[in-house]
Amino acid sequence: MASETVVLEGHIVDSLILAKVLDQILESGAEYEVVDFDMGRTNLDPSRAVIDVSAGDPDELDRLLADLHQHGVNRADVTDAQLEECRVDGVLPAGFYATTNLETDVHTGGRWQSVVNPEMDCAVVVGDEVRTVPMHRVRAGDRVVMGETGVRVHPLRPASGATVFEFMSSDVSSEKPKALMTRRVAERMRSGRERDARILAVCGPAVVHTGGSPHLARLVRAGWVDVLFAGNGFATHDIESNVLGTSLGVSVERGSQTEGGHSNHLRVINEVRRHGSIAAAVDIGYVGGGVMYECVRQRVPFVLGGSVRDDGPLPDVITDVVEAADRMRAELTGVGVALMLATTLHAVATGNLLPATVETFCVDINQAVVTKLADRGSHQARGIVTDVGPFLGDLADELGAR
Amino acid sequence: MASETVVLEGHIVDSLILAKVLDQILESGAEYEVVDFDMGRTNLDPSRAVIDVSAGDPDELDRLLADLHQHGVNRADVTDAQLEECRVDGVLPAGFYATTNLETDVHTGGRWQSVVNPEMDCAVVVGDEVRTVPMHRVRAGDRVVMGETGVRVHPLRPASGATVFEFMSSDVSSEKPKALMTRRVAERMRSGRERDARILAVCGPAVVHTGGSPHLARLVRAGWVDVLFAGNGFATHDIESNVLGTSLGVSVERGSQTEGGHSNHLRVINEVRRHGSIAAAVDIGYVGGGVMYECVRQRVPFVLGGSVRDDGPLPDVITDVVEAADRMRAELTGVGVALMLATTLHAVATGNLLPATVETFCVDINQAVVTKLADRGSHQARGIVTDVGPFLGDLADELGAR
Amino acid sequence: MASETVVLEGHIVDSLILAKVLDQILESGAEYEVVDFDMGRTNLDPSRAVIDVSAGDPDELDRLLADLHQHGVNRADVTDAQLEECRVDGVLPAGFYATTNLETDVHTGGRWQSVVNPEMDCAVVVGDEVRTVPMHRVRAGDRVVMGETGVRVHPLRPASGATVFEFMSSDVSSEKPKALMTRRVAERMRSGRERDARILAVCGPAVVHTGGSPHLARLVRAGWVDVLFAGNGFATHDIESNVLGTSLGVSVERGSQTEGGHSNHLRVINEVRRHGSIAAAVDIGYVGGGVMYECVRQRVPFVLGGSVRDDGPLPDVITDVVEAADRMRAELTGVGVALMLATTLHAVATGNLLPATVETFCVDINQAVVTKLADRGSHQARGIVTDVGPFLGDLADELGAR
Amino acid sequence: MASETVVLEGHIVDSLILAKVLDQILESGAEYEVVDFDMGRTNLDPSRAVIDVSAGDPDELDRLLADLHQHGVNRADVTDAQLEECRVDGVLPAGFYATTNLETDVHTGGRWQSVVNPEMDCAVVVGDEVRTVPMHRVRAGDRVVMGETGVRVHPLRPASGATVFEFMSSDVSSEKPKALMTRRVAERMRSGRERDARILAVCGPAVVHTGGSPHLARLVRAGWVDVLFAGNGFATHDIESNVLGTSLGVSVERGSQTEGGHSNHLRVINEVRRHGSIAAAVDIGYVGGGVMYECVRQRVPFVLGGSVRDDGPLPDVITDVVEAADRMRAELTGVGVALMLATTLHAVATGNLLPATVETFCVDINQAVVTKLADRGSHQARGIVTDVGPFLGDLADELGAR
Repeated sequence: MASETVVLEGHIVDSLILAKVLDQILESGAEYEVVDFDMGRTNLDPSRAVIDVSAGDPDELDRLLADLHQHGVNRADVTDAQLEECRVDGVLPAGFYATTNLETDVHTGGRWQSVVNPEMDCAVVVGDEVRTVPMHRVRAGDRVVMGETGVRVHPLRPASGATVFEFMSSDVSSEKPKALMTRRVAERMRSGRERDARILAVCGPAVVHTGGSPHLARLVRAGWVDVLFAGNGFATHDIESNVLGTSLGVSVERGSQTEGGHSNHLRVINEVRRHGSIAAAVDIGYVGGGVMYECVRQRVPFVLGGSVRDDGPLPDVITDVVEAADRMRAELTGVGVALMLATTLHAVATGNLLPATVETFCVDINQAVVTKLADRGSHQARGIVTDVGPFLGDLADELGAR
Repeated sequence: MASETVVLEGHIVDSLILAKVLDQILESGAEYEVVDFDMGRTNLDPSRAVIDVSAGDPDELDRLLADLHQHGVNRADVTDAQLEECRVDGVLPAGFYATTNLETDVHTGGRWQSVVNPEMDCAVVVGDEVRTVPMHRVRAGDRVVMGETGVRVHPLRPASGATVFEFMSSDVSSEKPKALMTRRVAERMRSGRERDARILAVCGPAVVHTGGSPHLARLVRAGWVDVLFAGNGFATHDIESNVLGTSLGVSVERGSQTEGGHSNHLRVINEVRRHGSIAAAVDIGYVGGGVMYECVRQRVPFVLGGSVRDDGPLPDVITDVVEAADRMRAELTGVGVALMLATTLHAVATGNLLPATVETFCVDINQAVVTKLADRGSHQARGIVTDVGPFLGDLADELGAR
Repeated sequence: MASETVVLEGHIVDSLILAKVLDQILESGAEYEVVDFDMGRTNLDPSRAVIDVSAGDPDELDRLLADLHQHGVNRADVTDAQLEECRVDGVLPAGFYATTNLETDVHTGGRWQSVVNPEMDCAVVVGDEVRTVPMHRVRAGDRVVMGETGVRVHPLRPASGATVFEFMSSDVSSEKPKALMTRRVAERMRSGRERDARILAVCGPAVVHTGGSPHLARLVRAGWVDVLFAGNGFATHDIESNVLGTSLGVSVERGSQTEGGHSNHLRVINEVRRHGSIAAAVDIGYVGGGVMYECVRQRVPFVLGGSVRDDGPLPDVITDVVEAADRMRAELTGVGVALMLATTLHAVATGNLLPATVETFCVDINQAVVTKLADRGSHQARGIVTDVGPFLGDLADELGAR
Repeated sequence: MASETVVLEGHIVDSLILAKVLDQILESGAEYEVVDFDMGRTNLDPSRAVIDVSAGDPDELDRLLADLHQHGVNRADVTDAQLEECRVDGVLPAGFYATTNLETDVHTGGRWQSVVNPEMDCAVVVGDEVRTVPMHRVRAGDRVVMGETGVRVHPLRPASGATVFEFMSSDVSSEKPKALMTRRVAERMRSGRERDARILAVCGPAVVHTGGSPHLARLVRAGWVDVLFAGNGFATHDIESNVLGTSLGVSVERGSQTEGGHSNHLRVINEVRRHGSIAAAVDIGYVGGGVMYECVRQRVPFVLGGSVRDDGPLPDVITDVVEAADRMRAELTGVGVALMLATTLHAVATGNLLPATVETFCVDINQAVVTKLADRGSHQARGIVTDVGPFLGDLADELGAR
């Protein structure tokens, strides 16, 4: 038998974290004893649990504690984190500490230092500051935190004012009052705007196919989107629908498949390639409206990440996916609200990069997409199971975007 | 080997029927030879195919021809239909002819007579007129058509003006321009209105949960719904949302689960039971708005069919399902357009009763529901994969319903 | 301002109930103060919270406490429950207490008495014993519990040994190791069998369409099903597949749609109607295999509840849905494990009747069905998103059913 | 008014192509007259339609004919294709002919020449041979076919022996006999093997999560997979499940989330990066089983295409998506059967590259994925809506793979 005393502190009851932690201990075959518990009297007061965890052997205990740690269960003992140097570029020492997307501190040089850029599934490198670094970017000589000793994770705290939204997180279902949910997303965007948080839109092609593109363009024009992530498909169909009036060859106006044809998206890509970039195609007047046009006009930065299914692609698409993810990382500074609009691939990709403190709304007609996002660790994501086209129309109206 | 010459006539190429028939012959292991074919020169001209079908033995051939018959493949030979008397109430003679929902004629007394009320999965009883009769309603002494000899089925012909909608029938997908589809449904309703066709709305509880109830109420008030089918759940939640402002205990206004509580639907049912009927509860002022209220006020007939999951139920619910289906049948006269709104059970039930000539739109967030309807024989149904709440708002706006 | 002291006791941390309760208080606009908290030291020890709840006015507080009560939040004060007599058959006094499916006690005559048959959405009638009674069954003169004063609800306690299954309840996703989940269901069935719990199977027609019928028949034959609920569709297609080798006219053996035809289900229903009952059709040799056959042979009771979409129906179908639900109620005694197999309607109907102590597994290819069940109050239901046909094959193999 | 005579030839009735073409003409607002029609007498004989198409103006007619052309509607007049030289690398002349995935001939130098490598959404370059070339690969000086003059497309002909499978293509539904469908896929794989066609497996991570990985490994070991496409996720979780016994940190054996932890996939990627390649990690004994292991052992080539959501990634992942697609293209020679296993991204990507003559089976628990594939032009794809883990187990058993 091996045992260790751990501490869990914060809004651990109302956020369900304490319950999940105790459940996980039992499920792993280990046992617990709650040796001390201070319950916050009101919802403003944090709670604090001190728990003795006992497992069959030290290895099992270590594995269990490593898992609990990602929910904010920290060892009671505080010692400095162990560091080890990378030997090879892009390869970590075997026992590296793997990050969560929660706020994290590292004890080094006798004091706690905050990790400046929380991101899940990274290593932590200690230098002048303490940073997360994705595996492919570590360099020989980087000093990497090993194991979870000396690492403190803060459990997720509900965003202020977000409780009104809690009902969505409990169960993701299509059977919810939709006008209301749209209003709430609008409120969170307004609240984000007030505290100077940037708003990120992550878009899939279904935004265009379902007729949501003009509404999203209104939102960009009115200043409600500060940065946009998408792929070749979204940008192409957005431009296609403005230049040729079709999306995947279907007339956006009349729904007929015959007008303009199946190859329209290729012709649009080809012309933009000829101009050299979307911005150039806007400047020269080839593209005269739509989401990408408004992004160029409003100087809203966008990152178009490539995928193996891309035709063309557009010249702005970053075909190297590692480089694309790095550019997305660089654009996340200051983002406080994220809208995932009908995209699985880019939603999961962005979810991987976002700190848990970013309010995230995932809008999709398919309930499974939202579940998938939460399964991949983006626990802060709230799901809205609805049709993205009409949703964007209502959202733009709600925010007074013309 | 056994063979027979059959005839298939009508819009059999553009409606895909000829292709399906040939495919089905091969799939069953039989063979065909097209001995004569007249192709309509334009889309207004019918085509006509004369086909020799050969199968391994007479039984196999008979089974195959029985199946082909339901698509409108009729034997070239014309003889009178065979009739047999029922011996027992509610039980048919073993080889009875089972109907499709297509227009059908029976050759009897030396001439073709139209079946006055096409409905699938019924028997045909020959009396003063030729009628479909569901199994449970046949009575001893009824003369029932046996086998498909002397029965002629007319292949489905596309509703005039409906071609504009064809693109929906090809593949049911959520990735369609939704504003456009809403506009098209509105057009078909207007066109139905112009030719004095009645409009049927079939409603599931998700209409209320997603916030669509006030919009459907507008449509009823403005005269766009002539008859309504639903179950206990829809009617209860519609009344609950008007009397108590909640749906399944969730505030329709604020989305919060705590206001009013989980038992609201029970209390509403109980009070309506106390008044004796929905109409009485409207008259006395207990119910002051909503879909059911408008139905009572506008004298729009409704049929509420019971189900085993019902709480209460409301006094208007017909708890005997055979009787409920009979009442639905009685209300179908003159119906030309049917909207299936977020309901699987009642959509399939109504689909079973509707002639194939009724234009049917099935609106659901779940693509599988629409597929299921077509799988069950309602081939005329067109699917719109979207969120029913916002859809109804847009539809009511489109039709100018206030 | 109005306030009241309430008590919540049991496994309220690991079952997430405490967190939900605190969340619900805040969401309703009220406030709380935890005045006393005893945390169970291990998972065998219950916890106990004493909470002061304050709301804006007494009405709001009452509504909130009524809602909290259904999770097991009981007033600290104990007084006798208020009783009121019904005036009219089938109508309750307006302020009746509406039940949950949790274990419940009523304080009457100065002492706590257990409700003998917990069922959600019922009234509680106090007579020689204290019973839940559905609205339609109360009779004038019945003494009904009013409000939640003097009513004590016990929070759901995880079934012993069920923790191994907890991982499923957290998120319902198709991305789980399926062989493992099948094994776990088998274990729970074996464990149910050992403690003499009866096993209930609730079946939809997709069991037959996906090829699961012979496997379920094996399970019935081997004694793994003690009672079966279904509708006309399941029973008809099960018999059709055995008598004619088809399901909805599709050959179960060869998948071809042409063999035997679309009307097979009608012919089968008609013949069983001729014989008078499924049991008679089995005895006379018309039905020689399948699930319904095995139920008759093994004397496994079944309830077939009617629905408005039924063809025929089979003579055993109870066409009055209120009577059908009453028969289902009568068959639930001793049921400890319930399998919901690819059915929304009957799963929700059965979920409405089951006490929360029954271990419930909901197997469906569509994630939304499982969410719906939980949304309707059957919180104990665990979801398995998979294809029911292959699932039943693996389950029968796992349990050694031949 | 403008009009033109076109010819459509082949199995155009049973493949529904004629019906679609006529429908599309009307939908576009144009008109047709069938001036000649030869119907094939049996299913072995081709049919031939000569159709006059009339549209409002020459431009409209040209756009319509361009669209019809992709179904195999060719101009009756035969003249040489127009060619134009590319001016810039990676940019096509504006009016380039955009390919379908059907067999295609180009009339050049006075005779028809076959396009050697049909692929959709490409240009056709005429040199020593006539080839499709994706946009990004054309080089200045390449002579590109302009418009559809002088281009002849052959309508899709059903693969010999595939008619038995037709029932799947009509409607994609989960309600099908699954054991049967598995048997049919096995038959098509055997038939492919007999005619020396290569078999391609395209895999998503859900193959591993649902427990399908060991079964797919059996298939690879037994020689039933000749080439494999996947992404970083599939390969990582396959290796993780073999090295550490988990998939996304969930124990494959016990389903518990706690064993081994959330960072397992990162550790596995890191170690494979240390070894330099999957093959190296197999050779050194780090990876001792699973799909990737068997691929290395059996020398089955694989292409791992990168995506923006990748962690790591594995050293074998091609992070430039354009290069990844080019490698996939290179591996498609000789592929006759393709299995798309629980992947949207890679299924659509592969569907874009495959000629229509490749028999394609798309297995997914979500019906929408299959619809999406067909919407994107891969009309030959047949859908099986089922759970991929159990499906692979049954398929491997059916094929006797141990």
